[in-house]
Amino acid sequence: MTGDRHDVGLLSPVWAGGGVEPLVSDRAYLEAMLEVEVALAETQAGLGIIPASSVGPIRAAARSGRIDPVALAHGSRRAANPVVGLVGALTGAVAELSPEAAEHVHHGCTSQDVLDTATVLVAARALRYTDDALVRTADALALLVALHRDTPMAGRTLTQHAVPVTFGLKAAGWLSLVLDASDRIRAVLATGLPAQLGGAAGTLAAYNEYAVGAPSAGEGGLPGRGTELVGPFARRLGLTAPSVPWHALRTPFADLGAVLSFTSGALGKLAVDVQGMARTEVAEVAEPSGEGRGASSAMPQKRNPVLATLIASAARQVPPLALVLTQALVSEDERSAGGWHAEWQPLRECLRLTAGAADSAAELAAGLVVFPDRMRANLEPGEGELVAERLNALLAPALGKAAAKKLLARLSAEAAAAAAAAAAAAEDGPGTPFAERLAAVPEAAGLFTGPGAPKDLLEPSGYLGAAGILADRVLARHTAR
Amino acid sequence: MTGDRHDVGLLSPVWAGGGVEPLVSDRAYLEAMLEVEVALAETQAGLGIIPASSVGPIRAAARSGRIDPVALAHGSRRAANPVVGLVGALTGAVAELSPEAAEHVHHGCTSQDVLDTATVLVAARALRYTDDALVRTADALALLVALHRDTPMAGRTLTQHAVPVTFGLKAAGWLSLVLDASDRIRAVLATGLPAQLGGAAGTLAAYNEYAVGAPSAGEGGLPGRGTELVGPFARRLGLTAPSVPWHALRTPFADLGAVLSFTSGALGKLAVDVQGMARTEVAEVAEPSGEGRGASSAMPQKRNPVLATLIASAARQVPPLALVLTQALVSEDERSAGGWHAEWQPLRECLRLTAGAADSAAELAAGLVVFPDRMRANLEPGEGELVAERLNALLAPALGKAAAKKLLARLSAEAAAAAAAAAAAAEDGPGTPFAERLAAVPEAAGLFTGPGAPKDLLEPSGYLGAAGILADRVLARHTAR
Amino acid sequence: MTGDRHDVGLLSPVWAGGGVEPLVSDRAYLEAMLEVEVALAETQAGLGIIPASSVGPIRAAARSGRIDPVALAHGSRRAANPVVGLVGALTGAVAELSPEAAEHVHHGCTSQDVLDTATVLVAARALRYTDDALVRTADALALLVALHRDTPMAGRTLTQHAVPVTFGLKAAGWLSLVLDASDRIRAVLATGLPAQLGGAAGTLAAYNEYAVGAPSAGEGGLPGRGTELVGPFARRLGLTAPSVPWHALRTPFADLGAVLSFTSGALGKLAVDVQGMARTEVAEVAEPSGEGRGASSAMPQKRNPVLATLIASAARQVPPLALVLTQALVSEDERSAGGWHAEWQPLRECLRLTAGAADSAAELAAGLVVFPDRMRANLEPGEGELVAERLNALLAPALGKAAAKKLLARLSAEAAAAAAAAAAAAEDGPGTPFAERLAAVPEAAGLFTGPGAPKDLLEPSGYLGAAGILADRVLARHTAR
Amino acid sequence: MTGDRHDVGLLSPVWAGGGVEPLVSDRAYLEAMLEVEVALAETQAGLGIIPASSVGPIRAAARSGRIDPVALAHGSRRAANPVVGLVGALTGAVAELSPEAAEHVHHGCTSQDVLDTATVLVAARALRYTDDALVRTADALALLVALHRDTPMAGRTLTQHAVPVTFGLKAAGWLSLVLDASDRIRAVLATGLPAQLGGAAGTLAAYNEYAVGAPSAGEGGLPGRGTELVGPFARRLGLTAPSVPWHALRTPFADLGAVLSFTSGALGKLAVDVQGMARTEVAEVAEPSGEGRGASSAMPQKRNPVLATLIASAARQVPPLALVLTQALVSEDERSAGGWHAEWQPLRECLRLTAGAADSAAELAAGLVVFPDRMRANLEPGEGELVAERLNALLAPALGKAAAKKLLARLSAEAAAAAAAAAAAAEDGPGTPFAERLAAVPEAAGLFTGPGAPKDLLEPSGYLGAAGILADRVLARHTAR
Repeated sequence: MTGDRHDVGLLSPVWAGGGVEPLVSDRAYLEAMLEVEVALAETQAGLGIIPASSVGPIRAAARSGRIDPVALAHGSRRAANPVVGLVGALTGAVAELSPEAAEHVHHGCTSQDVLDTATVLVAARALRYTDDALVRTADALALLVALHRDTPMAGRTLTQHAVPVTFGLKAAGWLSLVLDASDRIRAVLATGLPAQLGGAAGTLAAYNEYAVGAPSAGEGGLPGRGTELVGPFARRLGLTAPSVPWHALRTPFADLGAVLSFTSGALGKLAVDVQGMARTEVAEVAEPSGEGRGASSAMPQKRNPVLATLIASAARQVPPLALVLTQALVSEDERSAGGWHAEWQPLRECLRLTAGAADSAAELAAGLVVFPDRMRANLEPGEGELVAERLNALLAPALGKAAAKKLLARLSAEAAAAAAAAAAAAEDGPGTPFAERLAAVPEAAGLFTGPGAPKDLLEPSGYLGAAGILADRVLARHTAR
Repeated sequence: MTGDRHDVGLLSPVWAGGGVEPLVSDRAYLEAMLEVEVALAETQAGLGIIPASSVGPIRAAARSGRIDPVALAHGSRRAANPVVGLVGALTGAVAELSPEAAEHVHHGCTSQDVLDTATVLVAARALRYTDDALVRTADALALLVALHRDTPMAGRTLTQHAVPVTFGLKAAGWLSLVLDASDRIRAVLATGLPAQLGGAAGTLAAYNEYAVGAPSAGEGGLPGRGTELVGPFARRLGLTAPSVPWHALRTPFADLGAVLSFTSGALGKLAVDVQGMARTEVAEVAEPSGEGRGASSAMPQKRNPVLATLIASAARQVPPLALVLTQALVSEDERSAGGWHAEWQPLRECLRLTAGAADSAAELAAGLVVFPDRMRANLEPGEGELVAERLNALLAPALGKAAAKKLLARLSAEAAAAAAAAAAAAEDGPGTPFAERLAAVPEAAGLFTGPGAPKDLLEPSGYLGAAGILADRVLARHTAR
Repeated sequence: MTGDRHDVGLLSPVWAGGGVEPLVSDRAYLEAMLEVEVALAETQAGLGIIPASSVGPIRAAARSGRIDPVALAHGSRRAANPVVGLVGALTGAVAELSPEAAEHVHHGCTSQDVLDTATVLVAARALRYTDDALVRTADALALLVALHRDTPMAGRTLTQHAVPVTFGLKAAGWLSLVLDASDRIRAVLATGLPAQLGGAAGTLAAYNEYAVGAPSAGEGGLPGRGTELVGPFARRLGLTAPSVPWHALRTPFADLGAVLSFTSGALGKLAVDVQGMARTEVAEVAEPSGEGRGASSAMPQKRNPVLATLIASAARQVPPLALVLTQALVSEDERSAGGWHAEWQPLRECLRLTAGAADSAAELAAGLVVFPDRMRANLEPGEGELVAERLNALLAPALGKAAAKKLLARLSAEAAAAAAAAAAAAEDGPGTPFAERLAAVPEAAGLFTGPGAPKDLLEPSGYLGAAGILADRVLARHTAR
Repeated sequence: MTGDRHDVGLLSPVWAGGGVEPLVSDRAYLEAMLEVEVALAETQAGLGIIPASSVGPIRAAARSGRIDPVALAHGSRRAANPVVGLVGALTGAVAELSPEAAEHVHHGCTSQDVLDTATVLVAARALRYTDDALVRTADALALLVALHRDTPMAGRTLTQHAVPVTFGLKAAGWLSLVLDASDRIRAVLATGLPAQLGGAAGTLAAYNEYAVGAPSAGEGGLPGRGTELVGPFARRLGLTAPSVPWHALRTPFADLGAVLSFTSGALGKLAVDVQGMARTEVAEVAEPSGEGRGASSAMPQKRNPVLATLIASAARQVPPLALVLTQALVSEDERSAGGWHAEWQPLRECLRLTAGAADSAAELAAGLVVFPDRMRANLEPGEGELVAERLNALLAPALGKAAAKKLLARLSAEAAAAAAAAAAAAEDGPGTPFAERLAAVPEAAGLFTGPGAPKDLLEPSGYLGAAGILADRVLARHTAR
């Protein structure tokens, strides 16, 4: 039984059952390889290198669905790639329709031409799918930015409350990374996905040879047809024509690795922030709910942030996988013995993990439940401390910047110590808080009696700096795309 | 159609169709998870925590083959793991046989207990498989060492001929690494594969709770049954009982990553050497041949070193994949939101890539064709230069070590320049070679007229140092296992 | 000025100025290389291969401090390693003392023998240093485990409150990982640090040659002295004698990489948990304070968890660096052209980052401020929900496990919704909480009227499972070492 | 003594003593941080936020050379970064010149603003340096391409001779990768290097605050000055103004990692090919020679390809180091506790390893010694086999493609077997070679008697496909830049 040996995504909830799965499955690769063989035959027929009558049978055999990916996979061990077997199987299938056409399968071609081009086709589809999901993510995030442009929350640095920020600015940061990722994916889609056509060692010699010897060739053959083949072949497949074959010049795959790594990491930032804000004690956001969503097999009350978890799991896997692609730049000779072969599965994993993460991000962004009240409540415990930086600035003219900083640090530490002591003694109150201590300091008196009343002075929403302006900028970038 | 979405190994010739594939497939994971659920029920029944009558239906349902891995995979997105769905499906299947028994499925358990233990079961099987392949590799290499203990060949350092070595010593080096790998795998198999049983947050509380409330419990319940469960549960599965649950203490998986990385790298050394020696210009070894083995889709004459290529492709993939496992040591809280989930697929890939590489290595070592004549021929071109280090030692007493080195370096450079000039002029001979130049130097005269005749002095097989003794040591280590 | 070009640790607060820095500095490497040259001369003199009179001048020159590491570094580009220059400089310095002794420097030796052995010496020192810091960390953690064996706190899984645990169990988990790390380091220290002695291509040929031609050699020379050299040489340096030279068999460095990766990751788990618990909203622990410790350049009130941050920064760097070591297993030929050279700096970084992280961990563990009151307070907000798993078990006999789970999930969701609504309406109370809702459900009535009174039933400290027993086990493991 | 603890590049021959070293040393970072503080003061003075009179003393103190990087490094442990100490030291130094000016140091600023901007400055310099070296490399390679446009050599795939190529095409491939790398570096230089200015949590609040309270502020202060600061500040430093602060949005460093990884890998391809071609048995190229260049400490005759070795060692280190940068995209909160800190040293290493590799590549490309005669000689051993693909094409019309391939494969295998047998028997000749066997086959007779004479048919230089045209394309791309 097929399922006995094969992967159905059981260990990969990031993409199992999702829209990218069929785009990058083994069958998708097989079909892409067959598309390449057909496109080659069509192109060669168009140039008169093979008879036009051969194209029909090749196309029919390729689309017959009779080529078994399992047999190819198991046979791939012999040649260290599945293309040798594919060519055999395809040639056999064509021969049943037309023995003559079978002579024109894979004409002048080499395994790597087929598999590289097929991989680029698959990658293009997965990238477009991913970019769609990023667009949906960006749209949903833009809504959050606009809605919460002025919602104050605690800014946190090195795990500690720092100064106030807005949720709009935080979401704008996520949006900004998503746009960065989409920009990078679109750049690759626009110019980074070449077809591969080089022949045995990248000289196009056999393509030439068949052109020279073609029935339609005149006295001097059809010289130069090797290089003339690449353009129409690439166009037929919707790909770029490379200036030189790239069998051992792996720029396209290294670039794919870089952009997929980047995208997974950019989404990972969103995930890690949502996870932090969804923590039980913080509770500023919650993931969208749904039937069975976030359930635990043990605990009835659990509603786990599963979308963020899936995204995070992808962000941990993709960059190391993409490393294999970067390292494959070091490919010896005209074609590498191992470097090339190591790329296939990691690239496919990067494609589907990233696409699945983008799907999850779109769903997360669209359904994120935001609790502004809790954000506000979380701002309060250390009242006044969140604007200590501001107080420092205001006290500086009188006390000197350093002395003011020292004073504020002392008050903050004393307030913390008192709160801890009170808690330990199970007293009701938290000890004298920072704000009261500050008010009691003679040097700080001016702060509270001047034109700035204490209420405003310590109010976090009064110390948001340019948060709104910055959020607007990211929105503008999003709108302008 | 199933195959439309699923992986059948098309991009992974290293393991597709090989013996490890069914051991680590999604079905293997599913069955291991069901084994865990059954073992838990059996253990709990043995301790009187659940009724003995529940075990039969649970076992029968688990073995019914009715649980569909595809449905589980697609549902796994909801809970971010496949176990929540598995428990539901299993409970349903049990309920059809016995509604009462269905109450005792997954009793006190948590998703991670099931998936971690199942993964360890799968890993144990894959590791044993891999160790068998390493043993076959080692046996075959030992034969090569014995056979070629005294076969001289060029030692190469930084790509250049250095001093003579033996092929036996080279193969002994490969053997030594294979034994290192096998030692590490056996150490993990012996003590590094614990069952996982911790319950929701690693306190075993629910296991306790069900024990306390068990029908067979006396007045005071069955206290402590949580910890008492672990030992028999682990034994039943042939695994180690951990001292504490390791939901977020990922030593076992980090160790697995390390040993698999090591093994893939150790085999990669064999592969890269075979590739170097099989190069057309070197041609000192060839891979075993066979029907279609090493064929190219383009070039009739090609016999590619495909086994070494497959091994090399695994050696490039496994260490980055294993990095994900090492990095998962940094797992927050009682159970991580993403770190754990990122481990599953990379670990499975490491297991099957390494096993496939070991299979390939066994086949390569057993069938390696060795050409001692070519090794000998390759020793000759720079006659005398390969023992320049020896000449340095012999000239040192008279000339001083540094002056002798300088002299020899000069002669070597001049010989090389002359050879190049001769080649450029398309002359027949290679210019005056190093040995003749040396003989003509007055300071070196003593070398050739003393008790050591020139023939012996420059003979590579006379300058093999302790190569034989060293090879014997590795053989002895192999024999002693 | 030296400082103009050199690194003083400005970008590496993890180890800058710490105890490991001088153990692994460039000077430490230089001195270790000189130790190796001296030990070689001493060993060769002991065996009669070089005159005993040569040892003194070699030793004196090596210890003279006259060899300039900067000159060696800058010259290393020529030979792609610093040893060729070192041998020249040392020979020159010896020659000034004794021209004859200068003839016996680096006798029969190759660059890699010197640098590998020196690196192992440096690694041994850094590992011992690290293990000491791990022991201090473990001792401090053991105290925390004992002190807080029964201190309840919220267990958290996938970022959400799960069931209660104890801080003792959490600290026991950290301790367990630290002991795992120490075990692995000690295993490497015990058997994994061989000297390197192989000569040009690992046959020991030149060592033999010099032995044969040694003045003290009789008629037949001193054959076999190459292999006889290794043992005493290694013993003199306190290292293991390898069975074969390992120039291109990189087991020792791969093992070092694995153990350092593991240690950094194990400490990273401690760091990430401390960071999570130190978050402003959680505030269950604080880092030890001290002059300037945790200060911000901007915010007076900040007390950043800097030790955890340093540890975390090491845990992010070491595993990728160690990957270079694992990948260097794939080293071609008798000595690799690039693989070997790539190991040096990453290994040194791994050594000092891990040692610095261990230092930080020892300080963090010894000074960690624990707030049991806050842990208790954090248990309360969702009163009753933390033991929902227990309630599930108790309700199961009456309602069926699945129905009970569904009921509890519904009550929990309703309580959360009510709380959110109340907060949004700025009402005082949090809406009807879970426990009250539960009490109002007829099916649950039995829970509160039976022998288990409600207070106990919902009390987190009553649902700690085997936390205490498990913590004791780790303490026992620590004590037994 | 300083050198006792510090790194002088002893383990890094790739960059030690080279031109990039002083650009990225700790002193370079220190000076860049001081430049940032000065630029901030200048910009704030320009906007009237601080008195113009403060700029002079700040500038003077910053340039006084009195700030000790060692003290900063050792103190950095307290705050987990060197900036807190730097601000203290700078403020102190300014205070000695002008106590009032000391009040205006680091005004409104945060540590990460300073260190990130300084790092970007350093990176910009190192990238420009690297690009210069790439340009020199490209120029030298272009010369090789032009010179050897039509020099035939064996194309090698999966380590075996495949079909003929030209050395010009091979060098064009290297050139193409170098241009790809330079393009990517220039793109980053043009738009990817923003200044960082965000203040404590990225809202620019303190910058605003100081602007509002500035002496020159009118009634309503100078609102909005935070965002107005960024542009002039960035321009002053020659950097881009970011749309939002990127404290936790690490696009710029992730992009740097990607481009450095790419560059190191692109150069690694050149290195691995040079190493393969420089192998003693292949000997088609040699590295440029020079005093001590490529020397071994043991073997007088050695001339190691050290430049390629240095490049290869960088290509093995940079991608894993850059992985740390990619993974730092997952940075929690407004500023990360560990992610940020982990970036510093790996980025610096990436910068200098890549620059050093580029320097080495420029030297290698400019001095590469090419041996066309040897390339020609290497084409001959398997005479005829290198064009087996061509023969396949020519025989196909008569025999069918598959039958022709089978025939040629059989002849090739038989020739190889005969050669091996002859060698084993120590006979003179290599057995009947492929070409003779082919000529003897009746089916192939037509090949040799038709218009294509045998000499031409089997001549490798007659089967170069489009090699020349492809090489020209890369040259044209180079010229057009």
